Amino acid sequence: MEAKSWLSIPQGSHFSLSNIPFGIITTASSQNRRPAVAVGDQVLDLAEFSSNGGFSLLTSILPHISVFSQPTLNAFAALGRQVHREVRNYLQDIFTDDTTHPEILKTNTILQQKAVFPLKDVQTHLPMQIGDYTDFYAGLNHAYNLGVMFRGAANALQPNYTHLPVGYHGRASSVVVSGTPIRRPWGQILENPSADPKVPVFTQCKKLDLELELGAFVCRANKMGEPIPVDQAEGFLFGFVLVNDWSARDVQAWEYVPLGPFNSKNFGTTVSAWVVLPDALEPFLGNGLENKTELQAYLKEARNENIYNIKLEVDLTSKCSQMTGFHWNDAHDLIAKSGTTTITRTSSRNLLWSFPQMLAHHSITGCPMQVGDLLASGTISGTEPGTEGSLLEQSQNGKVSLKLQGGDERKFLEDWDIVTIRGVCGNNESSLVGFGECTGRIEPAVQGWPF
Amino acid sequence: MEAKSWLSIPQGSHFSLSNIPFGIITTASSQNRRPAVAVGDQVLDLAEFSSNGGFSLLTSILPHISVFSQPTLNAFAALGRQVHREVRNYLQDIFTDDTTHPEILKTNTILQQKAVFPLKDVQTHLPMQIGDYTDFYAGLNHAYNLGVMFRGAANALQPNYTHLPVGYHGRASSVVVSGTPIRRPWGQILENPSADPKVPVFTQCKKLDLELELGAFVCRANKMGEPIPVDQAEGFLFGFVLVNDWSARDVQAWEYVPLGPFNSKNFGTTVSAWVVLPDALEPFLGNGLENKTELQAYLKEARNENIYNIKLEVDLTSKCSQMTGFHWNDAHDLIAKSGTTTITRTSSRNLLWSFPQMLAHHSITGCPMQVGDLLASGTISGTEPGTEGSLLEQSQNGKVSLKLQGGDERKFLEDWDIVTIRGVCGNNESSLVGFGECTGRIEPAVQGWPF
Repeated sequence: MEAKSWLSIPQGSHFSLSNIPFGIITTASSQNRRPAVAVGDQVLDLAEFSSNGGFSLLTSILPHISVFSQPTLNAFAALGRQVHREVRNYLQDIFTDDTTHPEILKTNTILQQKAVFPLKDVQTHLPMQIGDYTDFYAGLNHAYNLGVMFRGAANALQPNYTHLPVGYHGRASSVVVSGTPIRRPWGQILENPSADPKVPVFTQCKKLDLELELGAFVCRANKMGEPIPVDQAEGFLFGFVLVNDWSARDVQAWEYVPLGPFNSKNFGTTVSAWVVLPDALEPFLGNGLENKTELQAYLKEARNENIYNIKLEVDLTSKCSQMTGFHWNDAHDLIAKSGTTTITRTSSRNLLWSFPQMLAHHSITGCPMQVGDLLASGTISGTEPGTEGSLLEQSQNGKVSLKLQGGDERKFLEDWDIVTIRGVCGNNESSLVGFGECTGRIEPAVQGWPF
Repeated sequence: MEAKSWLSIPQGSHFSLSNIPFGIITTASSQNRRPAVAVGDQVLDLAEFSSNGGFSLLTSILPHISVFSQPTLNAFAALGRQVHREVRNYLQDIFTDDTTHPEILKTNTILQQKAVFPLKDVQTHLPMQIGDYTDFYAGLNHAYNLGVMFRGAANALQPNYTHLPVGYHGRASSVVVSGTPIRRPWGQILENPSADPKVPVFTQCKKLDLELELGAFVCRANKMGEPIPVDQAEGFLFGFVLVNDWSARDVQAWEYVPLGPFNSKNFGTTVSAWVVLPDALEPFLGNGLENKTELQAYLKEARNENIYNIKLEVDLTSKCSQMTGFHWNDAHDLIAKSGTTTITRTSSRNLLWSFPQMLAHHSITGCPMQVGDLLASGTISGTEPGTEGSLLEQSQNGKVSLKLQGGDERKFLEDWDIVTIRGVCGNNESSLVGFGECTGRIEPAVQGWPF
C-alpha cells in the first residue's frame, strides 16, 4: 500500500501505513498499560481512541471493545485473524490522507490531542503475557557453523536436523521488552575442558553472547491431545517480533549435557515492542533455505513460499556506561551519539523451517498451545563473514576479535555494551514494514557472590 | 501431632490432622473453582468456610480473606510461609477434638453442611496457575541407570552431574491434575538407529513411559537479576506434590540431540491434587544421597538434613478400557476392582539435590522465579530391582518384560493402562502425611494422522 497519510510519516520509518504494528504503552500522564499502534514516529493510544468512539464505524469490534483497555494484547490476539485484519484495515483507512471517515481522527483535533503521542514520549512494555516460550533451531547456517566448531564439518548437522524443527522449551518469565537491562549472569564454567577430573569454577560469565532471532506470538489455543495441522497453523499466529536470546556460552558448554541449555539461557530474552501482523508481512513471503529431505506429511505445507524476507541487522554500541535510566528511546539517542558498529547484516530467509512448520511439529504430540505463547526461530545466520547472528560464530568461540568503530575489539559482550537488532521488509522508503529495535544493555554482574 | 479429630479420620489416611494439604475443588452444586483442605476422607471448602466467618478468630488472615475465593492457590501461596503456617495451625485446631473454638465448626452443624464434603464427591483441579515448569534430574540412580544403558558404566554420569543440579525447562501448559487422561502422542522415531542414512518414521509412540517425581510450587518471586541464596530458598517453596512426567522414549531418542527433550515430554505431565506444605513434611527431613564433590558456595546448605523421606510407590493397572468419564475418584474405584500391580517401591531419599539447592542454582543467573512456578525433581529410582521410577529402567529399554498380576506383561505402557503414584511419610497409621494419588490413564493416539 502506497497511500499517503495525513500524519507526517518520515521516509524510512519502519512504521509506514503498510505496517500498523500493535504494542503496549504507558505515558507520563498515565501509567496504565494499554494497547497502541505505531504510525511513523507517533503512536495511537487505542484505549483513548476506543473509549472516545474511534471504533464507532467498525461495528464488528464493538462487542469486544474492552480488549483495548487490557494491559497486554492477549485478549485482542484471542479475537483471531479476521478481527486483527479488520482492525488493521480500519486504522489504515483512518490514517490515510483520503480517509473515508475524516471525522473520526483526521479532523478531530480533540481526539488527536487525547490519543496521538510522539513515539519518543511513550514507554513500551511486554506486548503479551507469555505462557510458554519455545526456542527453535531453524537457522540452518547457525546450526552448521556451531556443528563445525564443536564436531567438525563432516558431522556438523545432527541426523535429525533436516527431518524436524529442533527446539527446546525456554524460560517464559525471563522474556523482557526491548530496552530492559540485561545483567551479566554468574555460573559454573569449565575453564580447562581437557583437565581430568573436570572441575568447574564459579564465576561471572565471560562469554556473554547475543542471538539474532525472529519470534511469533500465538493467538489461538488447541485442545490438549489435538495437533495443529500445518496448513491451519498460520491462523494460530498473532504476529511477529525480533528476539535476542542472550546466551552465556561458557555456562552452556558445561551444563548442557544431556538435557540441553538451561541457566545459559534463562537470565534474559529480549523481544521488540511492536508486534507486526502476518497481513503486513504477507507481501514479503518467499523461499527459505532448501530442504532436500523428504518431509513427513505433517510438516508439508501446501504453500511453497513460507519464509518472510526480512532484512536483519545487529548493531553493537561499545560501553555506554555514562547512562543511567535506560529505556529504548534513551538507547536510541545514545546509539546516535556513541560509536556504533553494525556487526551483522543478514536475512530471515536463512531459515530452514517456517513458523507454521514449527507449530505443527510442536503440537504433533498434542501439546496444548495457548494465547500468548512465544515461539522463536533460533539464531539466524548467513553463510558469509559478517552475516552471523551470534558472536560465538563471529569470533569463532573467542579465537578472533571483531574490530569495532572507534578502535575497540570484541570477542564477546562487555559490560555496558548495547546490542540493537533491527529488521525491516521492503525497498520503498515510504512503505516499509519494520520491527523497530530490539535492544538491551549489559549491566555488570551482581557483586558480593557467593553470599 | 497425634491429636484426635472430631471428624472421623480413617486409619491409614494420607490426610491426617498432621497434614492439612491444600487443593482446588468443584462440587456438583457449584462449578466455581475454589480452595479447600483435605482431612481424612473429607474436604473443607475454604470459600464457604471463610465467607461464613470460619476465619473470624484468625485476625491475621482477615485482610487477605479473598484468597479463599480464587480459582487457584496462587494468591494464598503469595501470602508467604508465615501465613500458610498460621492458617494450617488454625485449621488443625478447628478439626481437633478438643479444639479451643468448637463454635467455629465442631458444633456448627450448619457450616458443616455448607462446607464439609466427602472427598469422593469433589472434583479436584490444577492447584496452581503455573508460569514456568522446570524439570531437574536430581535422582542420581536414575541418571546412573540411564547412563549405563546408553554410554556404559564407565561414563554413566556426565562430569557436571555432581557439581550442579542438571535441569531443563519443561512445558507448563501441559501440566494437568491427577485423573486427567493422557493421550498417546505421535512423533518421529528412528526404528533402526544403526541405519545410514538415518531416516525416521512417523508413528504413534511405542515406548510410552512414566516418570516418578516429586514437585514443588514456588510461592515467592525474586527480582530478575537477583539470585536466591540457598539458605533463603526454602521460604520460596509453597508446598509439594507428586509428579508423573510422562515420556515418549522413542521420540526422545531421535529428537534430543543437541538441545534436550522437547516433544517427548510436552504431551502431558500429571501432578497430584493436594499441595502438602513444608511444615507438614518438616518432621520427615533427613539425608539424601551423599555427594562427595566439594560444592560451590552458592549450593552449600547450612542444614545437613535437606531431603524428605517419602515412601513412594507406583501402581500399574492393566487396560482399564471399560470406563469412560474418568477422574481420580473413578480411578480409585476401578483400581480396586481391577488387576493392579505395584511395580515400584522406593523413597525420595534417592535424590542428590534438595529443592533449595535446585532453586539456588536455577536463579544463580538472576532468572526470575514467579509464584506458581513448578519445579520437579527428575525421576526417583533406587538401586535395587523394583525400585526404579521408570519403565525404561525396569524393562532395560524394552529388553525384558515386567510380569503383572493377572498374567499381563509390560515393557512400556499400553492404551488404557492406569498409572498411579502414591507417596506418604510416617509409620503411625493415625498421623500419616501423604500426597494421595497422582494418577492418569493412557488413551489411544489420535486417529487419522496425517490429515
